[in-house]
Amino acid sequence: MTVELICVGTELLLGNIVNTNAAFISEKCAMLGLSMYYQSVVGDNAGRLGHLLHMAKERSDVIILSGGLGPTQDDLTKETAAEAMGKELVEDARAREEIEACMAKRGHAITENNWKQAMVPQGCKVLYNPNGTAPGIIMEDGDTRMILLPGPPNELIPMFEEQVYPYLRSLQPEIICSKMIKLCGIGESAAETKILDLINGQQNPTVAPYAKTGEVHLRITAKAEDEKAAFSLIAPVEEELKRRFGDCVYTDDPLVTLEQAVARLLEEHRLTVATAESCTGGLLAGRLVNVPGISGSLKEGYITYSNEAKEKLLGVSHGTLTAYGAVSPQTAAEMAKGGAEAAGADICISVTGIAGPGGGTEEKPVGLVYTGCYCKGNVYTEKNLYSGSRSKIREYAVANALTLLRKVILDEVKG
Amino acid sequence: MTVELICVGTELLLGNIVNTNAAFISEKCAMLGLSMYYQSVVGDNAGRLGHLLHMAKERSDVIILSGGLGPTQDDLTKETAAEAMGKELVEDARAREEIEACMAKRGHAITENNWKQAMVPQGCKVLYNPNGTAPGIIMEDGDTRMILLPGPPNELIPMFEEQVYPYLRSLQPEIICSKMIKLCGIGESAAETKILDLINGQQNPTVAPYAKTGEVHLRITAKAEDEKAAFSLIAPVEEELKRRFGDCVYTDDPLVTLEQAVARLLEEHRLTVATAESCTGGLLAGRLVNVPGISGSLKEGYITYSNEAKEKLLGVSHGTLTAYGAVSPQTAAEMAKGGAEAAGADICISVTGIAGPGGGTEEKPVGLVYTGCYCKGNVYTEKNLYSGSRSKIREYAVANALTLLRKVILDEVKG
Repeated sequence: MTVELICVGTELLLGNIVNTNAAFISEKCAMLGLSMYYQSVVGDNAGRLGHLLHMAKERSDVIILSGGLGPTQDDLTKETAAEAMGKELVEDARAREEIEACMAKRGHAITENNWKQAMVPQGCKVLYNPNGTAPGIIMEDGDTRMILLPGPPNELIPMFEEQVYPYLRSLQPEIICSKMIKLCGIGESAAETKILDLINGQQNPTVAPYAKTGEVHLRITAKAEDEKAAFSLIAPVEEELKRRFGDCVYTDDPLVTLEQAVARLLEEHRLTVATAESCTGGLLAGRLVNVPGISGSLKEGYITYSNEAKEKLLGVSHGTLTAYGAVSPQTAAEMAKGGAEAAGADICISVTGIAGPGGGTEEKPVGLVYTGCYCKGNVYTEKNLYSGSRSKIREYAVANALTLLRKVILDEVKG
Repeated sequence: MTVELICVGTELLLGNIVNTNAAFISEKCAMLGLSMYYQSVVGDNAGRLGHLLHMAKERSDVIILSGGLGPTQDDLTKETAAEAMGKELVEDARAREEIEACMAKRGHAITENNWKQAMVPQGCKVLYNPNGTAPGIIMEDGDTRMILLPGPPNELIPMFEEQVYPYLRSLQPEIICSKMIKLCGIGESAAETKILDLINGQQNPTVAPYAKTGEVHLRITAKAEDEKAAFSLIAPVEEELKRRFGDCVYTDDPLVTLEQAVARLLEEHRLTVATAESCTGGLLAGRLVNVPGISGSLKEGYITYSNEAKEKLLGVSHGTLTAYGAVSPQTAAEMAKGGAEAAGADICISVTGIAGPGGGTEEKPVGLVYTGCYCKGNVYTEKNLYSGSRSKIREYAVANALTLLRKVILDEVKG
């Protein structure tokens, strides 16, 4: 069964607000196994909306509209949709009462145009709205179903959860389940090349790669009559992906981030860590602190953007800085070693590089970043060259520092 | 002139990500005075995308597409768009070189599918992409213009700003000029209330407020036959806004960020600063290091997420921590004072709070954040209560710490 989403609102066309309703409704429909092929945004214009609705009726089984149910003249979603479905508008007694009650509660005087919101298409199912004055509507015309929802998320979300989701679920014989596998330390193309044979000619389940900064996420999606059947379709593919990517897989939980995976390893193995950052200037520690309760593992963090600070806080030798420069494997190594000693931590991860836009040379171009990791007496360093803006280079440097940190911990615990 | 936006990506139809590109592009098109009547989202499906493109060609002058330019098999926006515009794909030498260079820099092996990204429609304008491997494309067919952009915002945004915006601007007969005034230290509704009289019944120029995290941006937009005329319409409104918001105005340059404004003040007045962060865990220093060349002003940064680190690195007294707790004005003050002394800096800005989701109490709820600022003997503290996710609370805390830092410097230099 196919579903189509039409969001009505000039504020979306002007970019005044971000369309979070679309993401919310799309995710719910995907969970229900409804296939969404089209999303549209139109302004409060009867002609364009009407034209779109007629097209939608021809290509989709369920059409969900959000927005344009307000009391004002330019709110015409309901009128236009009713016309497209060949329905007359009639007053709904309960809707009228609820509007009266709601306005009274808000202490607002009722104006004539408020009653406009009590008019509903004949024979429709009215979705009463405890959070506002605009009721939602479900109407059917032959095999086509049209669902009208108010635009404000605080009205739309509960109405969808409580009244629309169960309705759509009842229409759906099949459901969709998906599993996410997250990788670090491998690029998108390299990852895809490893699984081209799985992607080509895939039917059910399907595998789709998503590129993130320094990560690749693989989503396995299956359709079946129930969850159990869906996950039994997913299981062998998941196992195969984990076999192929090995240690690059840092989680199979969609809610777990790379920093959380690292934090779990630290906690699990009772390892403490410190950070010593130059060009990333705190962003690496900032990501670790995304994890609630990291204080047990994160001893201290040092932001040593200047050479002076590298010497003073991390004990990087003046000789190293003058001989090799601040952006060198030697400095990265001394930063990591010195940071661990200063913090009394088992591990210290360091980053030093040239984030640009200035400061690059032929020998040391913008984007050159050295990462160092000290762990119980051993020091590892890594060299990377990133392209892009200053912020992009720093984002990549942070993602790769977390990846190196994870790798070092895994090697350490493997012995 | 009308513009239409088509975002390509199954991840949008599945609700995996929120379509922030649409809001960004729509806002820019509105600034240019382009009328947008339709936005659509389709999946990576040649048939449906092709059908939509043919419709778009009939109803819109400019068609902007985002997404589906990646190296993978399911990325087919370019192929489908070229066909709709009747263009052959040919290899672009420079695009090929840049992909080679980019992959080499990232240390990724080049796989066959990477070369797919070097193919471009014959006779098109190639928008080279310093932030990724997918070049953007501008192609024309009669009066129809089609613009293809990569999906990742960190690639799309700079490409649009630097290459697409000037192109679209050149198509517009009427000049639209705008001026941005950026405010900190005032909320959106408070800011809007101050200028309701200007917003109501405005024609040309118009004033539009945009709420950002911890900031409000006011855009003044004027239409005229040339820049000079447009800016002479803008000037009096700009002056009035600056008069009304006074010190809350941190810049009237759209490219200057709050951290840049702060960095300029520090440099201008030869003041050095240090950071002492608990719940923000380095994000505050990270924002200061967004500014190239901050090393002259930023002495050191301390990440002291644990109480132990607060005592050891910042000299916060054990008594203060036990008597008032880590999240208290007393601790924020001692962190700032101790941080400035340890770093030998004129100023130190400190942040300590409860970012959640756990750890809140009735007395100290999640979202409670204290900011401290030491400056040449004086210590200021500020209390804020934010709502939202852990990351949202930390973002607000960072923005407000920068705002307090700016305020303290302004007071200091005023004497």
